[in-house]
Amino acid sequence: MTYHKEPIRFGMVGGGKTGGIGKVHRTSAEMFDRFKLCAGVFSSNPEISLESALEWGVSPDRNYLSYDEMALRESERPDGIRVVVITTPNHLHSGPIQSFISKGIHVICDKPLTNTLEEARKIQTVVQGSGRVFMMTYCYTGYPLVREAKARIARGDIGSIKMAKVEYPQGHLATPIENTDQKQFQWRTDPARSGEGGTIADIGTHAYHMLRFVTGLKVKSLSAELKSFVKNRKVDDNAIVNLRLENDAIGLIWASQAAIGHENSLNFKIYGDNGSLEWSHTDPSKLWLFQLDSPKQLITRGSAETTIASRRITNIPAGHPEGYHEAFANLYLEAARAIYAVDNKLDIPSEVDYPGIEEGVEGMEFVFASIASSRQNCAWVNL
Amino acid sequence: MTYHKEPIRFGMVGGGKTGGIGKVHRTSAEMFDRFKLCAGVFSSNPEISLESALEWGVSPDRNYLSYDEMALRESERPDGIRVVVITTPNHLHSGPIQSFISKGIHVICDKPLTNTLEEARKIQTVVQGSGRVFMMTYCYTGYPLVREAKARIARGDIGSIKMAKVEYPQGHLATPIENTDQKQFQWRTDPARSGEGGTIADIGTHAYHMLRFVTGLKVKSLSAELKSFVKNRKVDDNAIVNLRLENDAIGLIWASQAAIGHENSLNFKIYGDNGSLEWSHTDPSKLWLFQLDSPKQLITRGSAETTIASRRITNIPAGHPEGYHEAFANLYLEAARAIYAVDNKLDIPSEVDYPGIEEGVEGMEFVFASIASSRQNCAWVNL
Amino acid sequence: MTYHKEPIRFGMVGGGKTGGIGKVHRTSAEMFDRFKLCAGVFSSNPEISLESALEWGVSPDRNYLSYDEMALRESERPDGIRVVVITTPNHLHSGPIQSFISKGIHVICDKPLTNTLEEARKIQTVVQGSGRVFMMTYCYTGYPLVREAKARIARGDIGSIKMAKVEYPQGHLATPIENTDQKQFQWRTDPARSGEGGTIADIGTHAYHMLRFVTGLKVKSLSAELKSFVKNRKVDDNAIVNLRLENDAIGLIWASQAAIGHENSLNFKIYGDNGSLEWSHTDPSKLWLFQLDSPKQLITRGSAETTIASRRITNIPAGHPEGYHEAFANLYLEAARAIYAVDNKLDIPSEVDYPGIEEGVEGMEFVFASIASSRQNCAWVNL
Amino acid sequence: MTYHKEPIRFGMVGGGKTGGIGKVHRTSAEMFDRFKLCAGVFSSNPEISLESALEWGVSPDRNYLSYDEMALRESERPDGIRVVVITTPNHLHSGPIQSFISKGIHVICDKPLTNTLEEARKIQTVVQGSGRVFMMTYCYTGYPLVREAKARIARGDIGSIKMAKVEYPQGHLATPIENTDQKQFQWRTDPARSGEGGTIADIGTHAYHMLRFVTGLKVKSLSAELKSFVKNRKVDDNAIVNLRLENDAIGLIWASQAAIGHENSLNFKIYGDNGSLEWSHTDPSKLWLFQLDSPKQLITRGSAETTIASRRITNIPAGHPEGYHEAFANLYLEAARAIYAVDNKLDIPSEVDYPGIEEGVEGMEFVFASIASSRQNCAWVNL
Repeated sequence: MTYHKEPIRFGMVGGGKTGGIGKVHRTSAEMFDRFKLCAGVFSSNPEISLESALEWGVSPDRNYLSYDEMALRESERPDGIRVVVITTPNHLHSGPIQSFISKGIHVICDKPLTNTLEEARKIQTVVQGSGRVFMMTYCYTGYPLVREAKARIARGDIGSIKMAKVEYPQGHLATPIENTDQKQFQWRTDPARSGEGGTIADIGTHAYHMLRFVTGLKVKSLSAELKSFVKNRKVDDNAIVNLRLENDAIGLIWASQAAIGHENSLNFKIYGDNGSLEWSHTDPSKLWLFQLDSPKQLITRGSAETTIASRRITNIPAGHPEGYHEAFANLYLEAARAIYAVDNKLDIPSEVDYPGIEEGVEGMEFVFASIASSRQNCAWVNL
Repeated sequence: MTYHKEPIRFGMVGGGKTGGIGKVHRTSAEMFDRFKLCAGVFSSNPEISLESALEWGVSPDRNYLSYDEMALRESERPDGIRVVVITTPNHLHSGPIQSFISKGIHVICDKPLTNTLEEARKIQTVVQGSGRVFMMTYCYTGYPLVREAKARIARGDIGSIKMAKVEYPQGHLATPIENTDQKQFQWRTDPARSGEGGTIADIGTHAYHMLRFVTGLKVKSLSAELKSFVKNRKVDDNAIVNLRLENDAIGLIWASQAAIGHENSLNFKIYGDNGSLEWSHTDPSKLWLFQLDSPKQLITRGSAETTIASRRITNIPAGHPEGYHEAFANLYLEAARAIYAVDNKLDIPSEVDYPGIEEGVEGMEFVFASIASSRQNCAWVNL
Repeated sequence: MTYHKEPIRFGMVGGGKTGGIGKVHRTSAEMFDRFKLCAGVFSSNPEISLESALEWGVSPDRNYLSYDEMALRESERPDGIRVVVITTPNHLHSGPIQSFISKGIHVICDKPLTNTLEEARKIQTVVQGSGRVFMMTYCYTGYPLVREAKARIARGDIGSIKMAKVEYPQGHLATPIENTDQKQFQWRTDPARSGEGGTIADIGTHAYHMLRFVTGLKVKSLSAELKSFVKNRKVDDNAIVNLRLENDAIGLIWASQAAIGHENSLNFKIYGDNGSLEWSHTDPSKLWLFQLDSPKQLITRGSAETTIASRRITNIPAGHPEGYHEAFANLYLEAARAIYAVDNKLDIPSEVDYPGIEEGVEGMEFVFASIASSRQNCAWVNL
Repeated sequence: MTYHKEPIRFGMVGGGKTGGIGKVHRTSAEMFDRFKLCAGVFSSNPEISLESALEWGVSPDRNYLSYDEMALRESERPDGIRVVVITTPNHLHSGPIQSFISKGIHVICDKPLTNTLEEARKIQTVVQGSGRVFMMTYCYTGYPLVREAKARIARGDIGSIKMAKVEYPQGHLATPIENTDQKQFQWRTDPARSGEGGTIADIGTHAYHMLRFVTGLKVKSLSAELKSFVKNRKVDDNAIVNLRLENDAIGLIWASQAAIGHENSLNFKIYGDNGSLEWSHTDPSKLWLFQLDSPKQLITRGSAETTIASRRITNIPAGHPEGYHEAFANLYLEAARAIYAVDNKLDIPSEVDYPGIEEGVEGMEFVFASIASSRQNCAWVNL
């Protein structure tokens, strides 16, 4: 696999420190050294934008007031950004996309693409003629076993697809939360700002993309029942969509944000005439494969039976949940807190909790007591 | 929570690009911006060390030939490292620890601490008098719900502990793999290099630390049965250890690296006189709580019922497996590959797979077709 | 709970020894002593009918040639049957129902009721005027936790229902099995014999009844997509049905007999505005309850938190899967085989496997060796 | 498989209607028609014994006052019992066993065999010379997939066994329940009546038998730690037993009745040098098979890949939990209640709940509405 020698310089439009998704983009982008944040219009609030820049190591002179300015100035610098990440609200995607593309800068954009279909098609025309890389962050297709499922289907492991079922239930909009002071939910349930589609746009698009990605089948037509389970909600919070796919296959999508009990339970089951595959985001390192006349198989990430499609994006050993890095990182954060305190001659805060030298010695005592006991026919040995 | 304003500069001893654990340390350390790698002796092979330095953005003049030189020179620089991470083989921990501590540099060290108990106690003396932060990377205590379990036990949710059971089975040493050409396993099963303890030291120490961490109970004595399931293996590959804890509680540890079917199945069950708690590394975002006279509870990471102990180290939303960042990062890696190809006027490799503009438009088409269908009583709408 | 003092005498129409479902009816009916099989027309083949009667302890003079004769003669006997169980193919339900009802005999009937709606309504008129008990064996509502779910919903545990989802996937019709010599499948996929509905009638009716039973909500209208995944199959083998229920709730049923990987995976998830409930036939002793602002609860059959609705039909202790009786029965079957052999001076067949006196003594040796070891500080004790 | 033509007549000593285990024995024995209860001394209380006889269809003249009388008289009748089931408290097994054996009657006996090892060996001598069938009801070996595991191990699926782990945790003795008025628990925790062993005898013997049954390996020695988690309890309620088996294998048994959160969680994991097998009583229709260089397999009861060892004792179709009969039986119980009410001109009690004619017709309406909708391109059809 070939990369740029240096991390790719990138900028962000939106995603400032007060929101959540900007941090996810940045942490993920920089995680394996292939990207380096260098510029941004992080917020429409200049103060927050500047603070974000400072916190994230972006030089203040590359914290811009508008995306147009940013596109222009960065495209003129010899060390300008090569790609921009756009994480503004949906109705504010179109402007920056066109601006950066026109300056020859690649674009990575949050989903959904826009609020209207017309705008989407307009952007498509701009992008397709540009020769620029354009990526939508439908992030759930980044799981190794989702790729495994796609590859298995493509090579015929389940035969010809008959039905594809994708569910994406969440529960956090089960109450009229937009009437509270949580701003995010006012925005998300306001058609003027988030578009006519509620759940269908917010997560239905993820489910739809997943179905398309994994099966590779085109969708011919659909029949949809959108509902607002919460009274007076202005957009849908539950969507059932029946699909007719090519090759006489059918599809069924259920997306909900008012399904109590679910946090983020994206899952799919794909049925073919020779087998089926099941995957769930709640346990993303497992993939079930059922085939006619074969035992039921559980495929785990990184196991010997996985194909190159998942292995090439598997970053940690089999048996380690993909959050292993975060767990490890948490220990490092504790160390950072302790070091800060010590370097500043402060007490280490009481909640900071990490294994120290005593734990290191204790581990050794345990090992040697165990060896001694075992050599004495399991005699009890004091510690 | 207070941190240094700037990321903490750190160095590494060992952990070069040819191994696996160095990358995990570095990725995790830098993940949330609190650390920045600046120096290292990454390998005993100078060439690999230099390559690692270059790949990881370390200036060549801070790639050293020995840890003593590194400790000296870094301690003299105004921008020298504040902390060193030691990931050398176990018998090579002691030297660097003492060297860096003597120069006032904090230390983070892989487990187990050393190969002999004498050496461990000697290091302990050095560290305890130094005022330096010293952390062992018993990484499994970094999972939010392990912290949750500890906090729940401390506040009495399960009453007085009666029994603590920790299992840590793996299967990758179930065959005489040390007779193949996989170097790592020759090293790990050679008492001269990895110490007298095999599995008991390698992962038994993790299990032991987990028991101590979660219960808070001291261990009074133990009875151990160490075995080599694989014939002629020079160290143990399976360990059963019975423990007697304070307060008349008992403990049971089973660690194995010859248990076929397990990848990395660390788990614990803690029983008190009022309840019990269960956690497993194979599904780390779930914690079971059973209490007398109460329904069985499943506590998920980030849910409303979690305590500050887990929330303060929870970095991503409830319902997103902790590998969400890695999945996201994988998409960014695909983008990096595509951008590299385009910037160098190459074809994008066929295996590079990411959602592009078509997928963005398709998502919009899906949303608006769904809205149209729903408004027409679920009529079928073509796509 | 009041019962007849004696088991209720019952007869069967259909269900002879060559089929499967007759045995299930009889075993279940007699399991807890409330019913006793006394008469029958077990098969249209007189020989099989007689053999079935003999095997099942029915007096040959109460093995009849026709259901009309059986209804007449049994109604005249002082010890005649009080109830008849009808397990003939669907198109042969109507005749016997009317015949037995007209003689004052209660009726228990397999589902679906008939092959045509007209016939169903005709039977309804007959039954409703008769004062006779009439039961459809929608057997899945007999699980204690299905009753628990119904009771919880009725008392408001999940608030007002918004959506009810019932799935019933099976996989055994995923191939054109009707073209093999397995007679059962020819019959089941022939509209002339099994009716126009395939899967929709065979198991869709179970799913529909489950939805109605658990929610108590009436169905106002439906939109259905029936498909034959197997080419040239004469009836549907996959059904997606969207439902509109009273109170503005919606329903979604998916039933399939061509979904590879599923054996008999009936399950439901019911979402209200205050919580949700999940149950699956693959693990029928567990019921999940999710409520706003409460921890996730797992309700197990027989546990302290269950209500009278499930407890009144719970026959075995908590923690014992409901198949405990069958496992116990299997040991008894082994004993029967051994006793047969011994009584007939034959060798006990080698595959007969049950714990004997040695296992009894061994158990005692184990207990006393354990006690001795424990008293000697866990010394090793030989067996 | 050959059986007696008629069900085998059997008697019971103990097991009267006021206890639980007698009913389980009887229901299981008669479940598949191979046994018929004909005689008994059901209780030391003559009144309860008679009531039990009447309730269970045993002629009053075959309800005896003592087991000696029963053994004598039944052995003299031409239609006397062929086998006796003994379910008295442990210290009362020995007398009846000897009495019935001496009259040529086969014996089925609850576990553990006796209270003392001396008595056990005495019985062994008596039984071994008698030519009578003698079965201990270690009931958990009656599950089909336990047999499957045994057969798989015997044929070498996991290679040579290295370690066998059996756990049997329960939680119902986690409080000093013997101080309440629940008589059963006073008896069970009184060494004078239940023997010196508490949990080790009550369920430890099940775990031990399971280990022996599945592995086929002999136990050479053991080291045990018995504890009473509940203060002042007179017998153990928690047992950890380390075992050394033949062929240099090891075993680990943990049995507890004070492990809160567990109802009846018997499980085993057997590790060989070529694979491993896992089974749990909480989900008894699943068996995991892990083999070197093969995908992880889930074997379900009745599936195509099962062997004759489990198929010969599989009584219901794949995908139906083994409690299918009980669920079915529950519907029959509801019918019995309704029939009782109708036959006695009483109102059917409001809690009696079974599907009637309306549900039968509704099912048909559902089927035909679905067919109509599907034929009209999924138009909405009213019900």
